[in-house]
Amino acid sequence: MRFIIQRVNQASVCIKGKDSTNKIGKGLLIYVGINKNDSEESLDFISEKLLNIKLFDGENEARWKESVLSLGIEILIVSNFTLYCNFKGNKPTYNHSMDGANAKILFEKLVQKLKDKYKEDKIKTGEFGEYMFINSDNDGPVTVDWDYPAEKSEDPKEQNKKKNKNEKKEKKDNK
Amino acid sequence: MRFIIQRVNQASVCIKGKDSTNKIGKGLLIYVGINKNDSEESLDFISEKLLNIKLFDGENEARWKESVLSLGIEILIVSNFTLYCNFKGNKPTYNHSMDGANAKILFEKLVQKLKDKYKEDKIKTGEFGEYMFINSDNDGPVTVDWDYPAEKSEDPKEQNKKKNKNEKKEKKDNK
Repeated sequence: MRFIIQRVNQASVCIKGKDSTNKIGKGLLIYVGINKNDSEESLDFISEKLLNIKLFDGENEARWKESVLSLGIEILIVSNFTLYCNFKGNKPTYNHSMDGANAKILFEKLVQKLKDKYKEDKIKTGEFGEYMFINSDNDGPVTVDWDYPAEKSEDPKEQNKKKNKNEKKEKKDNK
Repeated sequence: MRFIIQRVNQASVCIKGKDSTNKIGKGLLIYVGINKNDSEESLDFISEKLLNIKLFDGENEARWKESVLSLGIEILIVSNFTLYCNFKGNKPTYNHSMDGANAKILFEKLVQKLKDKYKEDKIKTGEFGEYMFINSDNDGPVTVDWDYPAEKSEDPKEQNKKKNKNEKKEKKDNK
């Protein structure tokens, strides 16, 4: 999964053609792209991480001290299949994204995990696959680009993990 | 360099403590992270790409047909060092970002390239390294995550390019 995480003073999602609007105050706006290799087993780790990463200031403007959980603030999480974009020349292609039906199941499970580990009313979302407008106030700006499992991390532990997983898959495919 | 590219109906940047506001209507909001290995030689390719990628609809709502250049619309481009974030546990670290002084030079050269290849008044920006608020209306949402040179692309050509570059660097370092 790929996450674009933005620290915001407010964010809201409006679904085109519907009255429904969901909004948060101070918190994280998280765009999620789901890769065709993603699976449910990562969701526990991911949801813990999103709730606990320290992208907010602490006392005396000390940086990177507080998280959504420690401050009791909110998350607006929105699915966005364009995150797994590759360009063929100038044309975007999205071959690495999971198909909509399966991605929807995984996305909804992730949202539920976040609610279960925190509070139902602190986690807002849009509507999977719908045409939406997202208004936000990025505070900083703070925009973080996080892949799990790591595709571009330079953390050797993460790279090994991915490598081992891929190797196992290859062995399986060759059987 | 890492780019988070968002298709927006409007976007504006407000620099904290100053009256200055820069804004665009329909166009692309682009966050740029500069890696310590980045260099000026990529800026021609990058600026061409940003102006020409087809993230906008064409006639009859045909998708991915038009670009900033073909529609004559605007770009708001903002530097954001947090894009090269790695987490140490829950704490973000930014060891892969270029130092501020050199990143500023490269960022300003990129902005100038965009202006030179298009129009001065269609390219807006914030102020490098300042505390800013960015308000935007993401249209879709469309959020694209693009690295150049590719760090996470699955395009074999790009991967080879990076590999060759790294290999050359290693040889040089070993001399």
